Amino acid sequence: MKDDQSITVLKIGGSVITDKGKDEGTARTGEIRRIAEEIAGYDSRLVIVHGAGSFGHPQAKRYDINGKFDPRGSIITHLSVKRLNSLIVAALNEAGVNAIGVHPMNCVLSEDTRIRNMFLEQISTMIDSSFVPVLHGDVVMDRELGTSVLSGDQIVPYLAYRLKAERIGIGSAEDGVLDGKGRTIERITPANFKEIKRFIGGSASTDVTGGMLGKVLELLNLSESSNINSYIFNAGHPGNVSGFLSGRNIGTAISKEEY
Amino acid sequence: MKDDQSITVLKIGGSVITDKGKDEGTARTGEIRRIAEEIAGYDSRLVIVHGAGSFGHPQAKRYDINGKFDPRGSIITHLSVKRLNSLIVAALNEAGVNAIGVHPMNCVLSEDTRIRNMFLEQISTMIDSSFVPVLHGDVVMDRELGTSVLSGDQIVPYLAYRLKAERIGIGSAEDGVLDGKGRTIERITPANFKEIKRFIGGSASTDVTGGMLGKVLELLNLSESSNINSYIFNAGHPGNVSGFLSGRNIGTAISKEEY
Repeated sequence: MKDDQSITVLKIGGSVITDKGKDEGTARTGEIRRIAEEIAGYDSRLVIVHGAGSFGHPQAKRYDINGKFDPRGSIITHLSVKRLNSLIVAALNEAGVNAIGVHPMNCVLSEDTRIRNMFLEQISTMIDSSFVPVLHGDVVMDRELGTSVLSGDQIVPYLAYRLKAERIGIGSAEDGVLDGKGRTIERITPANFKEIKRFIGGSASTDVTGGMLGKVLELLNLSESSNINSYIFNAGHPGNVSGFLSGRNIGTAISKEEY
Repeated sequence: MKDDQSITVLKIGGSVITDKGKDEGTARTGEIRRIAEEIAGYDSRLVIVHGAGSFGHPQAKRYDINGKFDPRGSIITHLSVKRLNSLIVAALNEAGVNAIGVHPMNCVLSEDTRIRNMFLEQISTMIDSSFVPVLHGDVVMDRELGTSVLSGDQIVPYLAYRLKAERIGIGSAEDGVLDGKGRTIERITPANFKEIKRFIGGSASTDVTGGMLGKVLELLNLSESSNINSYIFNAGHPGNVSGFLSGRNIGTAISKEEY
């Protein structure tokens, strides 16, 4: 039990661990294993959130569960992302991490697509007991809509804020947020966001939850209400996940102030 | 959304849906399918809780997770009962029930083996949205012990009480609670429990969570603090699950008063 240490929230993007261009439910098993091994070297309090990639977005689109209540489509989509989660949890355990899957369908109530309440006592106790909870983008119950799609990008800042995390890492498929010439923007703050916004697009392939702009907006909101700094970096580049976990600030930083 | 109807909690015992005498992780797939079909005929607000059977008890015993904190053993046991849950959820969906697995590991915090808190907002919303949540005996986080084993028999009365359920059905592998001559005892109340207690043993095979005596004690406690009546019946007998769900009072009733 390591009560004295700060918590890190690590997001692994759906584009990194699944092939969004290929068939539904195509996992990049080599990448999953490599990232699991990079995480295994890290010995601190950690929560992982992964995207749904090709295990969630095409299904959500096919059944139009963002647009209407479809119990069957919701179940099929949820079961599919659970399968991806079980692959990641298995790879982490194999690498020596005491990972436990935590499905938002089981511990979240949303209201009109936003998290209204999330049970966190089990997650805190996991962290205190040296487990690594592994959450993911999911279909969740929604008191307005029946069900709604909950993006990992909404879970990350919510968890970080409620768990009083210190750092957030967003492992994406790009080298951070890029400017018009493809160069990584070093830092985004409330002050320069307006100017930078024009560079930030949606996701390259099917993504029902907002892509890069969605990520940046959530993290910017968080930085304004807390002192949590976030880093968007390329998790597809070997060494970046372990580098971020060991304290390196890589990719694009999102913070309240320029410093 | 059927807000006007009462909630039923149905437990399916681990001995009914798994072969406790055989190898670890042996599911009775025919029985699971039959019971799923009996449930599919029922059109009301329902929560299902199933036991872990051979997917949980032998593993919990092997790693002695009732006696000490063993992260690896806890994860292995949890993953095993999750597999059983996914078989049952799949059979229910195939039979036409909009079933969703709810893993107690994801929504419970226990304290010294007793449920301290359980997130229920997602479960209530599932019921209101015509889904059937399917919980199970599980390893859960425990603020005293790190992890502890949570029996389905503890989940059932907790859920029934908190969700203000009207009826509980305990589908076991026996015709109810039997007297010394193998006859089903019709009713157990606080008044006759002392006299009946001597007939009630533990479970025939490996059961780390208390067997029949555990069940009866939990339900008797519940009947004393509420008006919820419980029925312990043989779920291995075709027609009993659908019979109970359609309102028949079969097996042994457990209630506050003789009536």
